[in-house]
Amino acid sequence: MRIALLAPALAAAFLAAPAPAAETRIPDAALAQMGELRTRALADDTGWKVVESLTTEIGPRLAGSEADARAVAWAVAKFHALGFDRVWSEPVTFPKWERRSEHAAVVGAHAQPLAITALGGSVGGTVEAQVVRFPDLAALEAAADGSLAGRIAFVDFQMQAARDGSGYRAGGAVRSRGPSVAIRKGAIGFLMRSAGTDNHRVPHTGITRYDDGLEPVPAAALSIPDADQLARLAARGPVSVRLALDCGWDGQYTSHNVIGQITGRSRPQEVVLIGAHLDSWDLGTGAVDDAAGIGITMAAARLIAQMPRRPARSIRVVAYANEEQGLLGGRAYAQAHADGIALHQLAAESDFGAGRIYAFNTGAPAHARAATAQIAGALAPLGIAYAPDKGGPGPDIIPLAARGVTWAWLAQDGSDYFHLHHTADDTLDKIDPAALAQNVAAYAVFAYLAADAEGDFGSAPKAASPAP
Amino acid sequence: MRIALLAPALAAAFLAAPAPAAETRIPDAALAQMGELRTRALADDTGWKVVESLTTEIGPRLAGSEADARAVAWAVAKFHALGFDRVWSEPVTFPKWERRSEHAAVVGAHAQPLAITALGGSVGGTVEAQVVRFPDLAALEAAADGSLAGRIAFVDFQMQAARDGSGYRAGGAVRSRGPSVAIRKGAIGFLMRSAGTDNHRVPHTGITRYDDGLEPVPAAALSIPDADQLARLAARGPVSVRLALDCGWDGQYTSHNVIGQITGRSRPQEVVLIGAHLDSWDLGTGAVDDAAGIGITMAAARLIAQMPRRPARSIRVVAYANEEQGLLGGRAYAQAHADGIALHQLAAESDFGAGRIYAFNTGAPAHARAATAQIAGALAPLGIAYAPDKGGPGPDIIPLAARGVTWAWLAQDGSDYFHLHHTADDTLDKIDPAALAQNVAAYAVFAYLAADAEGDFGSAPKAASPAP
Repeated sequence: MRIALLAPALAAAFLAAPAPAAETRIPDAALAQMGELRTRALADDTGWKVVESLTTEIGPRLAGSEADARAVAWAVAKFHALGFDRVWSEPVTFPKWERRSEHAAVVGAHAQPLAITALGGSVGGTVEAQVVRFPDLAALEAAADGSLAGRIAFVDFQMQAARDGSGYRAGGAVRSRGPSVAIRKGAIGFLMRSAGTDNHRVPHTGITRYDDGLEPVPAAALSIPDADQLARLAARGPVSVRLALDCGWDGQYTSHNVIGQITGRSRPQEVVLIGAHLDSWDLGTGAVDDAAGIGITMAAARLIAQMPRRPARSIRVVAYANEEQGLLGGRAYAQAHADGIALHQLAAESDFGAGRIYAFNTGAPAHARAATAQIAGALAPLGIAYAPDKGGPGPDIIPLAARGVTWAWLAQDGSDYFHLHHTADDTLDKIDPAALAQNVAAYAVFAYLAADAEGDFGSAPKAASPAP
Repeated sequence: MRIALLAPALAAAFLAAPAPAAETRIPDAALAQMGELRTRALADDTGWKVVESLTTEIGPRLAGSEADARAVAWAVAKFHALGFDRVWSEPVTFPKWERRSEHAAVVGAHAQPLAITALGGSVGGTVEAQVVRFPDLAALEAAADGSLAGRIAFVDFQMQAARDGSGYRAGGAVRSRGPSVAIRKGAIGFLMRSAGTDNHRVPHTGITRYDDGLEPVPAAALSIPDADQLARLAARGPVSVRLALDCGWDGQYTSHNVIGQITGRSRPQEVVLIGAHLDSWDLGTGAVDDAAGIGITMAAARLIAQMPRRPARSIRVVAYANEEQGLLGGRAYAQAHADGIALHQLAAESDFGAGRIYAFNTGAPAHARAATAQIAGALAPLGIAYAPDKGGPGPDIIPLAARGVTWAWLAQDGSDYFHLHHTADDTLDKIDPAALAQNVAAYAVFAYLAADAEGDFGSAPKAASPAP
C-alpha cells in the first residue's frame, strides 16, 4: 500500500471510505512469487526479440496491405513459438486505404520540393494554388466561409513534447478536424505542420476524416523543417504549392485480431487482457507504434507462463488489427466479446512507445482500490508511481471500457514518442532494450497479480453501452 | 605568440630556426582595432540572415539545376546588397548530373520499401537481385573477381563521428571507390550504408566516379536504419532487392563562381581569399553544406568593410560553383587566377558546417609563423587554439594550394556534421545562430589581420604546378 503517496485530503477520503464486504486482495502467494518474476523479466530479451522479428521480417504493415496478412500469420506463428496455450484469430473487416505516391513542391520564384505525406484517409488529387497560413486550428476556424476559395489552407501549429503526450491533443486535432474546416472555408487542399516534435524531414501521417456532406480535398502533412520553410516563404509574400497525392479508399478488407492465451490455474474462463496493435502506418516499420507493445505484452505473458505457479485467471494477449484507422480491431474485439464483459478482469493496451513506465493506475471501483495499490507497490521498485487519480484505457480498450470492462493504465514516458510517431523514422534502432525490458517486467507483474487477485476489479456490463 | 602551446621539441626547433630577414608581423594598429571587430561580429546577425535567405529563397541548388542559376543571381544580388565594392562572376563549365526518381525495396517474403538515394554520378537503371553483404570496403575488395555476377553488392560500413570529421575518410571511400570495386567483382548494382552518423531515414548522397573502362551500374546509399534492416535480413538468409534509379549525366552546363571584394586600403591588388561553395546537393536545402560558409564569409567581409580603418589588402569572397561534384568552381578559380598566385596572401574556405571553430593554423613558411601565431592569439578569446602542426586547405582551395597559394585553416567542430551532410535533413533549423556568429567573428578577425600584415604568408607560384 502506498497511501503515503496520496494527497492528504484524498488519503483521508480513501481511509474514511467504508471497506466493501468483498474487498479485492492480492494473495500473499502471488506477492511471494512476484519478485522473482520481476527480476527475470528485467534480464529477459524476449520482448526485444519479438520487436526485432516483427519490424524486420514484416516491416511496415498498413492495415489492408499485403503486409497486413503477413503480420497476422507472423503473430499466429509467434504466439505458438512462445508457447501460448491457445492461439486463435477473429476477423476484423474495414475499408482499405492505399498510399501510392505523394509529392509537393513550392512553385514559382522559390521553386523547391517539400517533404510531405498524405494523411491517412485522404483522397487523391493534384492541386496547385496559393497557400494561406494559419498559426493554429482556431485561426482557420475563424476564417470566413468561402474565404479560402481556390486556396490551399496551411495550419502551422507546432505541438509540444510532453512525457504524457498531452501535446497530441491539440496536434492531433489539426489532423483530424483541419481538412473539414478548410473545406468549409472553400479550400481546395489542406497542408499542416506535422503533429510531431522532431526536427527531421520525416512528415507524420495519421488518420483524418472528412465530415459527412463535404467534398473531400487532398490533405497532407509537411515535415517540421518543411513547415518552417513554408512559413518563412509565406512571410515573404504570396507563395504557391503544387500538391499531388495518389491515394484513397479502395473496397473492404478483412484482417484479424490475433489472440494468444496462457490458461489460468483455477478460473481459466476469466482473463486479464493485455495487448497492443499489430498494424502500423506504412512509412516506418512501426517499432514504437506498436511493435513495442506487441513485444512487451507477448513477452510478459510468456514469462508468466513460465512461473512455477500459474495465476488463477488466464492471461490473454490480443494483437489488434487496424488500430490506426479507427480502433477497428478494438471495436471488433469488444463486439465479439460483448457477452463476456465481466469475465475481463482488467484490460490494458501498450500503445505509447517503448519508454519506461512511470505511473500505474486502474479504473477499478472502491472495493478494488487496495488491490490496485498492492499492484502499484509491486511496480514501485521499477520506478513506477501509483497515480490513483490519473489514467484511462488505451485506444483499443476504449470500446471494451465503454461496455464496462475495467481498464488498467501503465503510463510510458512519451517524451520522444512524437519524434517518431507515424513517420519513416519509427524503426527498431529507436528502442532502448533496457527500457523495453522494464515495460515487460511491469506488464508481467501487473498481469500476474491481477490474474491471481482474490475478488474482482469491477468489470460489469453497463446498462447502456454505447455502440462500439 | 603562443609558443608555450607547442610540443617542447617542436618549440625548440621553432626557436632555433634563424629568423628570416623579412619576418611577417601583424601591425599594432590592426591589433588595436581587432577587438572591436571581434565584439561586433559576435553580436551581428548578418551571417544568419544570409544563410536564412539562401536556404529559404533558393533552397536546394544542385549544380546544373534550374536552382543553380537562381543561386548565382542570388549571390550577385546579395554581394551588392551587403555593400561589397566589386562584384563579378566567372564561368565554370561542367557535366550536368540529374536525379529524377529513385526507389528500392526488399522483394519476396519480407517485402518492404527501403529508403535510398542515388549516389551523385550514378547511372540510372533497374536491377533486381540477391544482395551480398560486406562489412567494409576491404572485404569487398577481397572478393574474387566475378564472384558477384548477377548480384548487388552491399557495403555495410558504419563511419564514426568525430570533431575533425576524420571518420569520413573511410566512409567517403566506400562511396567514391565502392561502385568500381563492385563492378570488377561482377556486381550489377551497388548499395552502401550511408557515409553518415545519424539514425534517421535520410540517406546520404555524394559524388561517386566509375573507373575508366568499367560498365557503370546503378549505385545508391541506404539510410542508416535501412542498412541496419538490410543487414538483419541478410543475416536471416538470402535477400533480394529491387533498385530502380532514374538519374544520370546529361550534357554540359555553365555556372559561375560569384565573387565579391572589399577593396584594400593600400595594396588592393593583393587579397585575402575567403569563401564557401554556393551549390548544394539536392536533397536538403544545403544549410550546413554550405550556406553556412557563404553566410560566414560574406558576413565577415562585410564587417571588415564597416571598420573605420580598412586593411591594407583586399578581402575577396568567392561563392564557388559546383564543389560537390569535384571542386569544379575551385579548379576554375585556380586556373583563371593562375597568374596571380603571389597576390593571394592567404586562402581559406568555410565548408564544414556551422559548428564552433576550435583550432587555427596556416600553411605559411617560417618567416610568417609568428604572424600566424599573432592571428591565433587574436582568435583565442573565441575559444580557438593555435594548432601549428595541423590543418590544410579547404576543398575549393586545394587547386590554389597546389599552385602555391598558402592556406589558412579555421577548424569547425564537425561532431554532428555527418548527421546532416548530403541528406534531406541539412536544413536551416540545424544551425545554432550563436555558433554561426562565432564563425563570423573568427573569419573577420583572421581576414582583417592577415590583410593588414606587414610582409607576406609565403604564397608563390610552384615550379611544377599539377594540373588543376
